Amino acid sequence: MTQRRIAVFGATGSIGVNTLDVINQLGGQDAFTVSAVTGNRNVERLAQQAIDHNAEMAVTADEQQYAALKTALSGSGVRPAAGASGLIEAAVMNNDLVMAAIVGTAGLKPALAAARAGADIALANKECLVSAGPLFLSAVHEGGGRLLPVDSEHSAIFQVLEQNQRRALERVIITASGGPFRTKTLEEMRHVDAATARAHPNWSMGLKISIDSASMFNKALEMIEALHLFSLRPDQVEVIVHPQSIIHSMVGYADGSVLAQLGCPDMRSAIGYALAYPHRPPLNVERLDFAKLARLDFESPDEQRFPALKLARIVMERGGLQGAILNAAKEIALEAFIEGRCGFLEMADITGQVMENMRGAPSACGIEDIYAADEEARRQAAGLIRA
Amino acid sequence: MTQRRIAVFGATGSIGVNTLDVINQLGGQDAFTVSAVTGNRNVERLAQQAIDHNAEMAVTADEQQYAALKTALSGSGVRPAAGASGLIEAAVMNNDLVMAAIVGTAGLKPALAAARAGADIALANKECLVSAGPLFLSAVHEGGGRLLPVDSEHSAIFQVLEQNQRRALERVIITASGGPFRTKTLEEMRHVDAATARAHPNWSMGLKISIDSASMFNKALEMIEALHLFSLRPDQVEVIVHPQSIIHSMVGYADGSVLAQLGCPDMRSAIGYALAYPHRPPLNVERLDFAKLARLDFESPDEQRFPALKLARIVMERGGLQGAILNAAKEIALEAFIEGRCGFLEMADITGQVMENMRGAPSACGIEDIYAADEEARRQAAGLIRA
Repeated sequence: MTQRRIAVFGATGSIGVNTLDVINQLGGQDAFTVSAVTGNRNVERLAQQAIDHNAEMAVTADEQQYAALKTALSGSGVRPAAGASGLIEAAVMNNDLVMAAIVGTAGLKPALAAARAGADIALANKECLVSAGPLFLSAVHEGGGRLLPVDSEHSAIFQVLEQNQRRALERVIITASGGPFRTKTLEEMRHVDAATARAHPNWSMGLKISIDSASMFNKALEMIEALHLFSLRPDQVEVIVHPQSIIHSMVGYADGSVLAQLGCPDMRSAIGYALAYPHRPPLNVERLDFAKLARLDFESPDEQRFPALKLARIVMERGGLQGAILNAAKEIALEAFIEGRCGFLEMADITGQVMENMRGAPSACGIEDIYAADEEARRQAAGLIRA
Repeated sequence: MTQRRIAVFGATGSIGVNTLDVINQLGGQDAFTVSAVTGNRNVERLAQQAIDHNAEMAVTADEQQYAALKTALSGSGVRPAAGASGLIEAAVMNNDLVMAAIVGTAGLKPALAAARAGADIALANKECLVSAGPLFLSAVHEGGGRLLPVDSEHSAIFQVLEQNQRRALERVIITASGGPFRTKTLEEMRHVDAATARAHPNWSMGLKISIDSASMFNKALEMIEALHLFSLRPDQVEVIVHPQSIIHSMVGYADGSVLAQLGCPDMRSAIGYALAYPHRPPLNVERLDFAKLARLDFESPDEQRFPALKLARIVMERGGLQGAILNAAKEIALEAFIEGRCGFLEMADITGQVMENMRGAPSACGIEDIYAADEEARRQAAGLIRA
């Protein structure tokens, strides 16, 4: 592998930390020059990462943290920067590869800028495809870089999708753990709280994404992402509940063959695949022991108990701004659920209602249209929750 | 796909019949010119196949059937031929592709001739690799054709083995159904007869191969085949018992990823993959329904109850003529078991004893050395059974 220049966006989060670990595993500064690391309010960690990885720049998205970051970096030779303009600057530092792991809509503009600048994009941010699919894909196309998924599901599909057999692709089968409520009844699910919902059976994740897993909103977003990422028809996107999360996803072909990628639940596998693509360098992650696994289970997802999946189908059919609307309304409902102001199943009700209300939204999908739809959907969702 | 010229060896057997079905599914005479079909004693079926597929020649391996074949073909325009020379003639008819599905050592010379003549070899015959691995591989190399596995296990590995990532290959994991005696005790297995042993849980196959499945000698042969086919070290060949036979086999990589090929148990999938390679044309085979499957199980193979697996490890370590010896001795023991002259577990005892006795055999592995070792192993096995 030749040395590559990488910027790590969202470096202080779970994916960012694992990305820096993988960079070390892949040879550290012999393999990668870290141009920039970016974070939000955790400037101590950010500064330490920048120093450890000999980054040229460290960016806090929060302008109020600039002074603290500057202090933490003093004497290190790492240049501090802050805010939206700092993020854009990091995005266009002549990078070969950008890890796009900023959570939320805030990740959109830097990822678009990095893509247009021609960097390969290791994509962990969901909004780039869910809210801005066509826009983001054309930015990648324009820049000429590659789009490398970092989600374990999309990485699995990417690994077994034969690029020269696209006409033979029948379906992708996204696996879902089913989360902590897989076996709960509809009635029981009506009354769960955030503390119960965050207990994901297989992956250790943040609060919001754990609850999105429990409601399968996470899977809904992944369905929409897969649609864009692999240029699929909506009917080619299947979901199967697979509680052990060992098969990370599959691709079905016209000859009846299904190819699958399997692994222990460790996000460093997918990160490593994206960072080293098209190579498969050795990674220090646990190996699968099938005798120990003993069994893998599968069941149909229940769209009654997990209505987020139905909403994903609607987004895939309607296109336009419906993805941005689903994502934004869901965020507001999720925050309300965490704060106890909204029931678990209501999250999908509210999201669906906002999607329905905003069906007539203008079909232009430029970045400002997306931000406007996002804002309006949040406003409407908040209104429905207060009501 | 451009039209390709194919000879089907062993056309009247199960793989041959399925091959002709797949040829029809792939476009029949628009996609393939059938140069020759070959069979053994079932000349009526062979003649009909030759006529249906507009073959130029039909060959019976049994010279005594020549007259009957000639009669069956009279007026059809298909040229009849017989015996070893007829088979060699069919092997070198300027074929693009040869389906090598003759069972047993008899398949060796025609496959070698076809390989040397530069045809792609769709390989179903086991002896080519088990008994004559290095010889056969160098014949393929010499001819410049491709070697395309037809066994579902090797086809699976072939489908998920990334040719440009060979250095990242850690292991192949061959799945085994475990056969009808998977859950039987060692004591119970001592007393089973051929009628019980032939009842394979997932695949409908001939008598001998069903019993080889029950003893896992079939899997032992596949381990040795995989070693040669994919240029592996013995320690890279793993076996896992997977009773549902849905995962046809897997490849494990240095980044912890395991890639798998899955499908319904239908040998037309692997045949279709070999015939159309490198394309994946649509095949009319059943699609997998994971919710219906519900679960996939895995367990370690028990080398006490299935000592054939231990013998395979010995062959892989020793190399030389040990594969030919295992195969030949096993054949004699298998026939004796079918005829009630040898116990189920004794098959491996006898095979292992012959392998041990003949350890000092000359290390030259030319075709005549292989035939001599085969003959001597059969003689010794027969002697042990009589004793």
